[in-house]
Amino acid sequence: MIIESVDLFYVRMPEVLDIGDGSQDGLVFRVRAGGFEGFGEAVASPLTSIASWIAPMSHSGCHPVIDSVLGSKLDSPADIQAIADRVRAQSFYGIIQSDLTFSGIEIALWDLLGRAKEQPIYELLGYRSSEKKLPYASVLFGDSPAETLEKARSMRTRGFSAIKFGWGPFGRGSVEQDAEHIFAAREGIGSDGHLMIDAGTVFGDDVDAAALRLKALSEAKVKWYEEPVSAAAISLYKNLSLRTPKVPLAGGEGAHNRYQAEHLIDQGGVEYIQIDTGYIGGIGPAYKVAQHAVKQGVQFVNHTFTSHSALAASMHPFAGLKEFWLAEYPMEPKALCAEMNKNKIEIQSDGMIQVPERPGLGIDFDTETIKKYLVEIEIKDSGKVLYKTPTI
Amino acid sequence: MIIESVDLFYVRMPEVLDIGDGSQDGLVFRVRAGGFEGFGEAVASPLTSIASWIAPMSHSGCHPVIDSVLGSKLDSPADIQAIADRVRAQSFYGIIQSDLTFSGIEIALWDLLGRAKEQPIYELLGYRSSEKKLPYASVLFGDSPAETLEKARSMRTRGFSAIKFGWGPFGRGSVEQDAEHIFAAREGIGSDGHLMIDAGTVFGDDVDAAALRLKALSEAKVKWYEEPVSAAAISLYKNLSLRTPKVPLAGGEGAHNRYQAEHLIDQGGVEYIQIDTGYIGGIGPAYKVAQHAVKQGVQFVNHTFTSHSALAASMHPFAGLKEFWLAEYPMEPKALCAEMNKNKIEIQSDGMIQVPERPGLGIDFDTETIKKYLVEIEIKDSGKVLYKTPTI
Repeated sequence: MIIESVDLFYVRMPEVLDIGDGSQDGLVFRVRAGGFEGFGEAVASPLTSIASWIAPMSHSGCHPVIDSVLGSKLDSPADIQAIADRVRAQSFYGIIQSDLTFSGIEIALWDLLGRAKEQPIYELLGYRSSEKKLPYASVLFGDSPAETLEKARSMRTRGFSAIKFGWGPFGRGSVEQDAEHIFAAREGIGSDGHLMIDAGTVFGDDVDAAALRLKALSEAKVKWYEEPVSAAAISLYKNLSLRTPKVPLAGGEGAHNRYQAEHLIDQGGVEYIQIDTGYIGGIGPAYKVAQHAVKQGVQFVNHTFTSHSALAASMHPFAGLKEFWLAEYPMEPKALCAEMNKNKIEIQSDGMIQVPERPGLGIDFDTETIKKYLVEIEIKDSGKVLYKTPTI
Repeated sequence: MIIESVDLFYVRMPEVLDIGDGSQDGLVFRVRAGGFEGFGEAVASPLTSIASWIAPMSHSGCHPVIDSVLGSKLDSPADIQAIADRVRAQSFYGIIQSDLTFSGIEIALWDLLGRAKEQPIYELLGYRSSEKKLPYASVLFGDSPAETLEKARSMRTRGFSAIKFGWGPFGRGSVEQDAEHIFAAREGIGSDGHLMIDAGTVFGDDVDAAALRLKALSEAKVKWYEEPVSAAAISLYKNLSLRTPKVPLAGGEGAHNRYQAEHLIDQGGVEYIQIDTGYIGGIGPAYKVAQHAVKQGVQFVNHTFTSHSALAASMHPFAGLKEFWLAEYPMEPKALCAEMNKNKIEIQSDGMIQVPERPGLGIDFDTETIKKYLVEIEIKDSGKVLYKTPTI
């Protein structure tokens, strides 16, 4: 097959709020080849990634992503790797947004290939089965500890034994206020539940401020403390991992290539590596990080806060690995992401989830949803239209 | 002072060639505050960075860069740091191009502050003097070894005792062909000159292919072997640094935040760290990396392939440090970059260069040049114009 077309669709809620909720817009890619279609999403500022797709070449190392994709051969996973290598070689300097942009395309390539071969992506990766994972509910902290308590109780009532709280007021007030939120979350979940805390890089470079929260986190027996500092600050992760009381660290959603994730494992001292296939360059690099995590004895977990197609894309890379038994499960997506797909990864009667045993991603996009939330973009260079929102 | 306006100008040669020459286009920023103006350049795909400047917010961690800059206070270096911190906090996820975009703005902020205070940037950084540096000529390999030899002789005749060859055919043919180019360069320079080789990340992830060139590099007594593998692959740098024959490694131009550069020093085993202020987030982070290099006993060198304003911006962060005595000096810029400035960093009678002892960057932009090469861009979202090339 030859890649005939790649279309980019910027979708957005009518109103986008200034809160830590990444499900308010999206960038969907549709790839066509050999009579088949594949879809994927990038976790990226849509307009910025659209620009990186069609930006005029600056030099041999700063091509737009389109130059490495259209017209390429697509018959095997090796062909996807060859396209990824070409993107790196042609877009490695000055157009770093291309890492995110290509993530969505790469997922669509796997989806298309799986549909053409009538195989789930996890099989194309060499896994024999889609193993069950325990879904953890990923929610924002309440505005007050009372609200956090209420949210935790409600999630527990809905059947979740593993819940992650993040963002919102955490790290923006006092150490005591954060402790109140942490203990409220623990109380709501109960002593037997898995509790995770996501700081959303709120402490930036301030590793001491991040460390001041360790005491409460330890007392509340949290499973992990996620992204306390800037994603790139691997040395600060290491620093924090050696402090007392010791609390396991998690991170990796900010890795936009596999090396950053592998260094976070090898040098940063994290015990949980969280990868978003829509960010790290797609399913290929996420799979490599999962294999690296096996070797290093670190837990691999998906990062997903949006749609069920994104959830599937982030689960395939570790679908066949029994030892990685936890999966982030988006609980509060905005209507855009809730309506994005025709089918879902439902929680089964035993409380577990698994990637569908269906061709490609195993999750179908609803083109009516894309049409409903579609944003009209036009980019012109010297009067010539470089990009105009295509029809879906 | 309050930042009243920031204007982005995409400038481009009439024809952009698919070669490793980053001087074929540019993105210039003009900042106005308190009756003063400052200019800076980002080393970035111009259209992609323009998009990151005005892209609609996706969530609280994915704001366009404009949201953290316009209307901010600018009276001291601490104010610039505060703006940089805000960009990180508001644009750290999904809009990674903002690192490059902000680099150009940050430089313009320092330029403006220096002009307002009538101080060179290096003084604002705390340095007492602008130390002399030995300029090395940075040129592309010839298409043939004979052409490389001719280029090396010509540069030596023009007075350069330090010359770097890079890109072009290097790494794209056989090990023997690369060796011929390396030995031709050495012959043209003479045995007493400093010879550096820049692989331009041509070997990607293939550290063995990169290592096959070590023998010739060692025999030709090169000062450093630059960017043999992908910029992000810090573990591969480390691997290569331990191979024999031992050749000093250089890298860092691909670092888009200071942590990546510091990890390349601490974990990657490089002996030369090369920083482009137009890429790493500006003068502030480049200064921090220079201080880290002092502490770790590694040589700091600027990375510059474009204009003399970019050269000044990349020299200020280590201007006052005598132990860092080398500076990359762009030798073959296209007309756009050759005409970008009203004054230049000239090579003095002793063969040395230094950052001008003048306020701000010390180099003035020629607005006529910007006008001459200006590209007309228009970006619309749902019929509303988000960006239109401003008048200069």
